[in-house]
Amino acid sequence: MDHSPAGPPEFVLQPGRRQRLGDQLYGQILEQIVSGRLREGERLPSELRICEMFGVSRPVVRAALSRLRADGLVQARQGAGTFVLHRPADRLTRFAEPGQIAQFLRCVEVRLPLEAAAARLAAERRQEADLVRIEAAQAVCRRELDEGSLRVEADLAFHAAVASASGNEMFTDMLHHIQGVLSGFMRLSLNLTRTGSTARAQAVLQEHAHIQYAIVSGDAEGAETAMRFHIGQARRRMTDRNRDL
Amino acid sequence: MDHSPAGPPEFVLQPGRRQRLGDQLYGQILEQIVSGRLREGERLPSELRICEMFGVSRPVVRAALSRLRADGLVQARQGAGTFVLHRPADRLTRFAEPGQIAQFLRCVEVRLPLEAAAARLAAERRQEADLVRIEAAQAVCRRELDEGSLRVEADLAFHAAVASASGNEMFTDMLHHIQGVLSGFMRLSLNLTRTGSTARAQAVLQEHAHIQYAIVSGDAEGAETAMRFHIGQARRRMTDRNRDL
Amino acid sequence: MDHSPAGPPEFVLQPGRRQRLGDQLYGQILEQIVSGRLREGERLPSELRICEMFGVSRPVVRAALSRLRADGLVQARQGAGTFVLHRPADRLTRFAEPGQIAQFLRCVEVRLPLEAAAARLAAERRQEADLVRIEAAQAVCRRELDEGSLRVEADLAFHAAVASASGNEMFTDMLHHIQGVLSGFMRLSLNLTRTGSTARAQAVLQEHAHIQYAIVSGDAEGAETAMRFHIGQARRRMTDRNRDL
Amino acid sequence: MDHSPAGPPEFVLQPGRRQRLGDQLYGQILEQIVSGRLREGERLPSELRICEMFGVSRPVVRAALSRLRADGLVQARQGAGTFVLHRPADRLTRFAEPGQIAQFLRCVEVRLPLEAAAARLAAERRQEADLVRIEAAQAVCRRELDEGSLRVEADLAFHAAVASASGNEMFTDMLHHIQGVLSGFMRLSLNLTRTGSTARAQAVLQEHAHIQYAIVSGDAEGAETAMRFHIGQARRRMTDRNRDL
Repeated sequence: MDHSPAGPPEFVLQPGRRQRLGDQLYGQILEQIVSGRLREGERLPSELRICEMFGVSRPVVRAALSRLRADGLVQARQGAGTFVLHRPADRLTRFAEPGQIAQFLRCVEVRLPLEAAAARLAAERRQEADLVRIEAAQAVCRRELDEGSLRVEADLAFHAAVASASGNEMFTDMLHHIQGVLSGFMRLSLNLTRTGSTARAQAVLQEHAHIQYAIVSGDAEGAETAMRFHIGQARRRMTDRNRDL
Repeated sequence: MDHSPAGPPEFVLQPGRRQRLGDQLYGQILEQIVSGRLREGERLPSELRICEMFGVSRPVVRAALSRLRADGLVQARQGAGTFVLHRPADRLTRFAEPGQIAQFLRCVEVRLPLEAAAARLAAERRQEADLVRIEAAQAVCRRELDEGSLRVEADLAFHAAVASASGNEMFTDMLHHIQGVLSGFMRLSLNLTRTGSTARAQAVLQEHAHIQYAIVSGDAEGAETAMRFHIGQARRRMTDRNRDL
Repeated sequence: MDHSPAGPPEFVLQPGRRQRLGDQLYGQILEQIVSGRLREGERLPSELRICEMFGVSRPVVRAALSRLRADGLVQARQGAGTFVLHRPADRLTRFAEPGQIAQFLRCVEVRLPLEAAAARLAAERRQEADLVRIEAAQAVCRRELDEGSLRVEADLAFHAAVASASGNEMFTDMLHHIQGVLSGFMRLSLNLTRTGSTARAQAVLQEHAHIQYAIVSGDAEGAETAMRFHIGQARRRMTDRNRDL
Repeated sequence: MDHSPAGPPEFVLQPGRRQRLGDQLYGQILEQIVSGRLREGERLPSELRICEMFGVSRPVVRAALSRLRADGLVQARQGAGTFVLHRPADRLTRFAEPGQIAQFLRCVEVRLPLEAAAARLAAERRQEADLVRIEAAQAVCRRELDEGSLRVEADLAFHAAVASASGNEMFTDMLHHIQGVLSGFMRLSLNLTRTGSTARAQAVLQEHAHIQYAIVSGDAEGAETAMRFHIGQARRRMTDRNRDL
C-alpha cells in the first residue's frame, strides 16, 4: 500500500493486499463453523496457535477474528478466548463460496448506514409518485411470494424504490454501484428461503411492510429503524441456522 | 465511474428526469440567494407563484424547496411560507456553478452516514498500521496548512485512511466511487478557505484531530460523532457566509 | 417521585403552563379522532380556525398539532393543511383519558433514546447473571401469555432486566423515576391486547425475543435497533387501529 | 437482588449491591491512574491478580475494567491485557472523590442519548419563545465567561432551555431528576476550568453556540450531533489531562 499523500487520489483509495489475506483466513474458519467441525459453544484455537497453523502474522489473525465477531459468528470472552456463537445452515455453502459469503456480510455493514439514511429521508420527502412506486414493488413481492418464490429483482426493486424516494439520486447511484454484491446476497438469501420454510419469506415481506408503513406515515425515525431491523435480520438469517426457519 | 454490468434490473435504479428539473429550479433559487437578490430573512414567493414563474408542476417546486431546506438555506414556517435562512459567501459562485454546488450538497447526505459508520468501525478495529496511516495523513494536512494551503489530496487522504481503518474495503470502494464529487466539494471548500481566513483551515484541522483522537482511543461513539460533526460543519461553511470566517 | 432538593436552579427546570394548555387542546383533538368525528384522511380546520374555536394563541395550536404529528396521528402536507393519518382503536378511550394517552405518547419519546442506549450497553457489557435475569423475565412473559394474559409486572421486569444489564445503575434509576407513566402505558397496552387479539401479544413477545437475542449475541447495534423497533411498534399499536390487530 | 417478577415493581428496579462493589474497585484503580502510580501506556495487573489483590470475584473485576474502558481511561488489547490510555489532571482529585467522579462519568452515558434526543426534537419544534430562552441562557454564559468565571447555574440553564424547547416536558423532568449529579459534574468541570486555562471555557461556549445554531436553523441532525459532541468533549476534558488545556 502506498500512503504517499501527494499521489493521484485514485491510488490512495486502493484496498491493500493485507485485507485479502485476512479474507482467506476468515473463509477457512467460516468453513469449519458451517461444516460443524467447530461446533457452537466450542473454543477456537488461541491467536498464537492460529498464526502457526495458517502461517500468518498476528494482525492478520486479529483482522479475521474481528470480522467473524462483527458477523456474529464468534464471540470473544475477555481472558477466556474466542468461542463459536452461531452456526449458519449447512446448505449455505451449497449455494456460495466462503469468500462470497464474507463479501456479502461485508456488504451488510455498508448497506446498514446507507439504506437506513435513505429510508429516513424517504419518510421526510416522499412524494405521491414515490409511494406509488414503493407499493408497486411491494405488491410484486407479495404476488411472487404467493406464487411460491420471491425473485431477486422484486426484492431489489423494493429497496431501489425506497432509495429513490429519498429525493437524492446519489443513494440510488450507490445502490447501483454495489448492485452486483447486493444481488448476490439476495440470491443466496432467497435460495436459502426456497429450500427452507415459507415463514422465512413471510418475515421478509413483513419487514418490508414495516418500512413502507413508516415512510407512508412520514415517520423518519421509524423508517430508519425498520430498515436497520430488516437488514440486520437478513444478516442473522444467513449466519444463524436457528434463525433460518 | 464503472457500474457493474451484471443484473437485468438495471432500469430499476435509473434516476428519473423529474429530479433533474428540480435541480435546475434549485440552482436558480440558490443563485438568487447567493447573489443577494433574495436576502436573509426574506420570504420566497408562494409555491403556486414559483410554479407559474418557472413553468413547472407543484411536485417539482416542492422537491426544489425540500432540498433547499435540507441544505439549511431556507426554512419553512408552518402556515407562513418559506424564508431565506442562510446566505453563502458571494465568492462561492466564483468557484462553482449552482448545479455543482447542488451536487456537492447532495453528496453530504451520503457521506454523513457512510463516513460516520466507517469512523465508528475504525475505532473498534483499527490496527497499528491504520493509526500510523491516519497520523501520516494528518501530519501532511498540518504541514501544508503551515505552509499556507491545504490541498485536496491531503484532505482526501485523511478520509481515505479512516475508511481503510474500518477493516471493510467496501467503505474505501464507496469513497472511491464518489471521489469525483468528493474532490470537487473539497476543492471548492479549500478555494473558499484560501480566499477566506486561516481560522477556517484551522477548524478543518481541529475537526480531523477530534476524529483521530477518538479512533486512537477506541471510542466508537466519539469517532462517529466527530465525523458527523466534521462533515456537518463542512456543509455549514459552504452554505452560511457567517460561518465562512 | 423524589426530586433531589440540592441546587438553587430549581425553577430553571420547571415546566411552564403553556405546555399544559397545549395538552388540553391536544386531548380534545385526539378525542375527536378516536371518536371518529374526525375521520382518517380528513383535513383538520386551519390553525387560525382552531385558534378561534378554542380561544387559544397560535403557538399553542402549533404545539398541539406538532405533538399530534409526532405521535403519527396527523400529517402536515405543505401548503395543503393537516390531515388525520391514523385512527386509534375505539376502545382506547374506554381505558384511558386523552390527557393520559398524551402523557403515554410523550413518554415514548423519552423511552426511545434511553432504553435504546441501555440495550446497546447491555449487549456490550452483560455478564452471566444479567443474561439469566433477562431470560427469567422473558420466561415469565411467555408463561403468562400461554395462560392467557401478560401482566404489567412481567413486561416491566423484562425492560428492567435489560436496563440493569447496561451495568450503569442510572438507567435503572431513570426507568424507576418514570415507572408510573411507564406502567400506565403498559397497562393500557395490555388492556387493549386482552380485549384484542392474541396476535398482538405474540408480537410483543417476539419483539422481546429479538432484543434478548441481540444482547446474548453481544450485538450492540442489533440490540439498539431491536429496542427502538419494539418501543416504536408499541406506539403504533396504540395509535393505529389497523395495527391494533 | 430479588428477581421475583410477581413483586411490586418498585422492587424490581432497585440497583443491587454488586454494582457498588465494582464502584469501589473502579474508584481505587481510578485513584492510581490520577495519582500517576499507574502511568499512561502502563499495563494493569491481570484480572486474576486484581481478584487476589482486592479480594473480589472475577465478574466484579470485569465490571470495573469495563467501566474504565467506557470512560476512556484504559484500553483492552486482545490477548495482551489492559493498558492505561489517558490520565486525568492531578487537580481532579482535589475537587472530587473517586466515587463521585465515577458517578459523573456514569451520568454521561445517560445524558448522551437523552439530551441528544431533546436537542433533535428542539430543532424540529422550537417556537419563538424557546429560541429567546436559549439565547438568554447563552448570553449569560458569555457574560459570565467574560467576567472571569462561568457558574453552574448558567450552564445548567442552557441545557434546561434546550430540553424545554423539545416541547416534551418529560425531558425537562428527567434533567431535573438527575440535577444533583449533573450539577456536581458541571461544578467539578468548571472548577477545573477556573484553575486551568480560559481556552477550556471558550470551548464550552463554542460548543453551546454550535447547538444553538443548529436549533435556530431547524437542523435536527445537526443539533443532535452538536449535543453529542459537547457532552463527549465534557467527558474528555475530565478524563484526559492533555485535553484539559
